[in-house]
Amino acid sequence: MTISMYQASVPRFVNILGNLSKILDKAQAHIDARKIADATLTAYRLFPDMLPLATQVQIACDSAKGVIARLSGVDAPVFEDNETTFAALKERVAKTIAYLQSVPADKIDGTEDKAIVTKRGDKETHYVGMQFLLGHAVPNFYFHVTTTYNILRHNGVEIGKRDYLGQP
Amino acid sequence: MTISMYQASVPRFVNILGNLSKILDKAQAHIDARKIADATLTAYRLFPDMLPLATQVQIACDSAKGVIARLSGVDAPVFEDNETTFAALKERVAKTIAYLQSVPADKIDGTEDKAIVTKRGDKETHYVGMQFLLGHAVPNFYFHVTTTYNILRHNGVEIGKRDYLGQP
Repeated sequence: MTISMYQASVPRFVNILGNLSKILDKAQAHIDARKIADATLTAYRLFPDMLPLATQVQIACDSAKGVIARLSGVDAPVFEDNETTFAALKERVAKTIAYLQSVPADKIDGTEDKAIVTKRGDKETHYVGMQFLLGHAVPNFYFHVTTTYNILRHNGVEIGKRDYLGQP
Repeated sequence: MTISMYQASVPRFVNILGNLSKILDKAQAHIDARKIADATLTAYRLFPDMLPLATQVQIACDSAKGVIARLSGVDAPVFEDNETTFAALKERVAKTIAYLQSVPADKIDGTEDKAIVTKRGDKETHYVGMQFLLGHAVPNFYFHVTTTYNILRHNGVEIGKRDYLGQP
């Protein structure tokens, strides 16, 4: 017995994105109760040259859909990166979950050695599938979900680590 | 081809803990240059009822060594949770890496279905090995490393996501 590429990816991303969606609900309830504008939190940064909350959610979604699209070859939806409200961010998360759940496991399984090339400006980085999933996409995904959590927590939204981990 | 329990755990934890150690070096350089006491940052919290940086590093280490000890049956070192300086935190990270690297892969491989029970007060939670690794330990590990990063970033330490991801 071993772990399949599917088991190590889709169910894990879907679980955490579902938890993220509920965390965004708590953020919504927090601003509603205090009559705070969405952008006060969605544009909030932990430091001036860090990315704001909305971008953290966008990249978390893109990190999950990006690796699944590259591994499976199934085109992922393209988003406009224009969300400024919690409702819009929740919709992006929901669309990302729907895409992930639409990809058949057998398109992801067996991609451990698939060549993956990423480009950043002129710089190409070469990976194989398992390395890209476990060494890049997974830690990047958790980084942006956790940073979203930390921005909300820093602003007093009442969430705890249980909200992030959920029921694995 | 599939992913082994070892491949999904030890090399990933070791890579990120190595990156964390270099991030702690940058924090050390930051406080040295400004004559700031270690505790100003190691006791820093993003919100009053969040855990401080030192505890974030402690739990990141414990999350990695805890899951490997449970899966492999190889006893992990016990730490006193008394670190207040970056030097002491770096030592804990180094000892955690040494333990992880000391555990033979064949003690971890094949533990996908091993029964794992965690206790929190009176509450027991039952997992099997793969679920505990991928659904609990891995996201918990990344959560605490990222929160360490965010505390430092929020305090102006010059680090970027590349420092967190390293070379996978």
